[in-house]
Amino acid sequence: MAKIDVGKYRNLRRVVGEGWINIHPIQRGGILPPESREALLSFGDGYSTCDICIEGRVDLVRTPPILEFASDLAKFLDMDEVRFTPGARGAKQAIFRSIANPGDTIVLDSLAHYTSYIAAEVNDLKVVEVPHGGYPEFRVNVDDYAAKIEEVKRQTGELPAAVLLTHVDYRYGNLSDAAKVGKIAKDYGVPYILNAAYTAGVMPVDGKRLGVDFLVCSGHKSWASSGPIGILATTYEFSGKVFRTSAIKGPWSGRAFLKKDVFLFGCPPVFGAPVATLMASFPHVVERVEHWDEEVEKVRWFVKEFERIKDFHQLGERPRQHTLVTFETPSFHKVSKKHERRGFFLYEELKKRKIAGVHAGMTKMIKLNTYGLGREQIQKVIDAFHEIARTYKVEVE
Amino acid sequence: MAKIDVGKYRNLRRVVGEGWINIHPIQRGGILPPESREALLSFGDGYSTCDICIEGRVDLVRTPPILEFASDLAKFLDMDEVRFTPGARGAKQAIFRSIANPGDTIVLDSLAHYTSYIAAEVNDLKVVEVPHGGYPEFRVNVDDYAAKIEEVKRQTGELPAAVLLTHVDYRYGNLSDAAKVGKIAKDYGVPYILNAAYTAGVMPVDGKRLGVDFLVCSGHKSWASSGPIGILATTYEFSGKVFRTSAIKGPWSGRAFLKKDVFLFGCPPVFGAPVATLMASFPHVVERVEHWDEEVEKVRWFVKEFERIKDFHQLGERPRQHTLVTFETPSFHKVSKKHERRGFFLYEELKKRKIAGVHAGMTKMIKLNTYGLGREQIQKVIDAFHEIARTYKVEVE
Repeated sequence: MAKIDVGKYRNLRRVVGEGWINIHPIQRGGILPPESREALLSFGDGYSTCDICIEGRVDLVRTPPILEFASDLAKFLDMDEVRFTPGARGAKQAIFRSIANPGDTIVLDSLAHYTSYIAAEVNDLKVVEVPHGGYPEFRVNVDDYAAKIEEVKRQTGELPAAVLLTHVDYRYGNLSDAAKVGKIAKDYGVPYILNAAYTAGVMPVDGKRLGVDFLVCSGHKSWASSGPIGILATTYEFSGKVFRTSAIKGPWSGRAFLKKDVFLFGCPPVFGAPVATLMASFPHVVERVEHWDEEVEKVRWFVKEFERIKDFHQLGERPRQHTLVTFETPSFHKVSKKHERRGFFLYEELKKRKIAGVHAGMTKMIKLNTYGLGREQIQKVIDAFHEIARTYKVEVE
Repeated sequence: MAKIDVGKYRNLRRVVGEGWINIHPIQRGGILPPESREALLSFGDGYSTCDICIEGRVDLVRTPPILEFASDLAKFLDMDEVRFTPGARGAKQAIFRSIANPGDTIVLDSLAHYTSYIAAEVNDLKVVEVPHGGYPEFRVNVDDYAAKIEEVKRQTGELPAAVLLTHVDYRYGNLSDAAKVGKIAKDYGVPYILNAAYTAGVMPVDGKRLGVDFLVCSGHKSWASSGPIGILATTYEFSGKVFRTSAIKGPWSGRAFLKKDVFLFGCPPVFGAPVATLMASFPHVVERVEHWDEEVEKVRWFVKEFERIKDFHQLGERPRQHTLVTFETPSFHKVSKKHERRGFFLYEELKKRKIAGVHAGMTKMIKLNTYGLGREQIQKVIDAFHEIARTYKVEVE
């Protein structure tokens, strides 16, 4: 075996230090509260939630109370049954695998997360996109789901295998009307998947009220969980299909695995820290979704202050309905062109001020998330940007 | 929304306390060294390894040095290319998906992990099993791989899509001759998958030397990692196939995801704590595999001492070549029949002595793992069992 220099793996630490303000667009909802950091340490070892596993599947474990947790989660999401998955991406892959056949078509919004497209691709499905309205709001017109379902029917002779809506998208943070799509899907009798990766866990989401057949959530994105872990919630109508248990039998040995979920790796790879922290953060999450309005208020104030910088314009719908927000920032881009550190000047100016989460090297557009930050922290971020603007002779109103 | 009592999720702690001796068969190789517990805390939040993600895939991240790590891992395993997967189970599913078609047959050993069968089932593959020799050694006769390949060829007109060998199985801890299967697979030109979940990371495993096309490892099982995380290592011959990148294109938007791995969820759900702890433990793992001989010595001594208890017989091959070991223990089973706590008496007697990891309620057979325990700890386990035996009038020689 070749000699390997392992020195670089010693003392691994994150670049975002203690006390920093983190505005990373995909990280704000995944920050562990103190009680979950303790659970993380207790359940840090591999397979730690499997100490007392009688039935051979992580969602059936009673100590710690994962079985009860799955049932509480279903209630919390207003759905019938829940399983854990390797990320929201794993949930979408399993759903497509269980309800569609190769060659089928699914309809999704054109702001869907890349993992929705990949979940279709790995299952050999075709996708039809519901357009968005383009610059500057990029709104998906959810009424178009009906037209797209019709289009698929006309072109293939069959209804699409499913429609998928991204509740809040990761590019502009637009909140789409999930109930409206639920109504359309129901009218056509097409299964409806709601990707709630950026909504469930930070804001209230009631699956059945929205007419959802499959609700997909992300623990590391929006449930204050170490993860990676996803939540796949469905109704009794579909649970037998997507949570189908194994029917394979060893032809020589006769071995069978009757409790194992076929589309979820038998027992999904989320045991240990992912499910332990998801569970430890649940009380915190149940509490915090009640304060979503305050989060929306804060981001609207933030946008107003941010747009005082010359040529900073918020993209996506106005006013904000979500804390993930994108700005076009051509004035900073102009600065970067003359700066010796090019696009990295902004990243480095923020780093000096212990602010992390802006894409390193990027100045044309800035994407960030204010979720869970206090007003003083947000003020610090605003002040930092105003200061940086002035430093580089960009006007602040 | 229904009112949920979240009290039970507060102060979640593992049943295995500090200072306990843990002999759980699937946990010994997953225990974090102190330096990885520190990395776990630093990288505890969701998406923490994605602070500086330029290329949109976790194995391409340079800070922390994941890109370099993947390359060092390939060297360490004597393979060409490595990706991370949601557990070894995720690796097997991806391999089958990429090299087999629905209806194809694969050949596997009859001691294979259930996730190998499930990976076949989810991909609509048929399985043919290589038999084992039954009680008491349950050895897989690896020469039979040739006969089974022939059988598939005769019955289907085609070679199997792949053969899979479980390097060390999870039932008896038998070590199979991986190089011999490698030779057979090569002779027939059939892709060869080695499931090294219980070997790579605790003992030296050199993939190419064994003739392996796909090497599958488990971070939480055998790489001292919090996980869940798997390692999929392959050769240049197959890397383009199994690590195929996305070719899907949004028909309206033109969106494409050219760097995303189709069979690995675009970017595999292992970012954050799983890959951070796998990496932080790597120096420890590189060091520890050199001491495998000492581990084998210790388990052989353990078996000798354990079998001093009346009617305790080690199952699986003799002498031990792995630290995972199963015993039939009919004398303890007899005790359980008269005990008011039935089969739980053993679990509870051990708990009193701060020994964890024996399947609660089970006394007919005992499965455990001595990996990484010091001689004093192993002596304590032996003493505990001898003492329990004497308490219930089971003779100790």
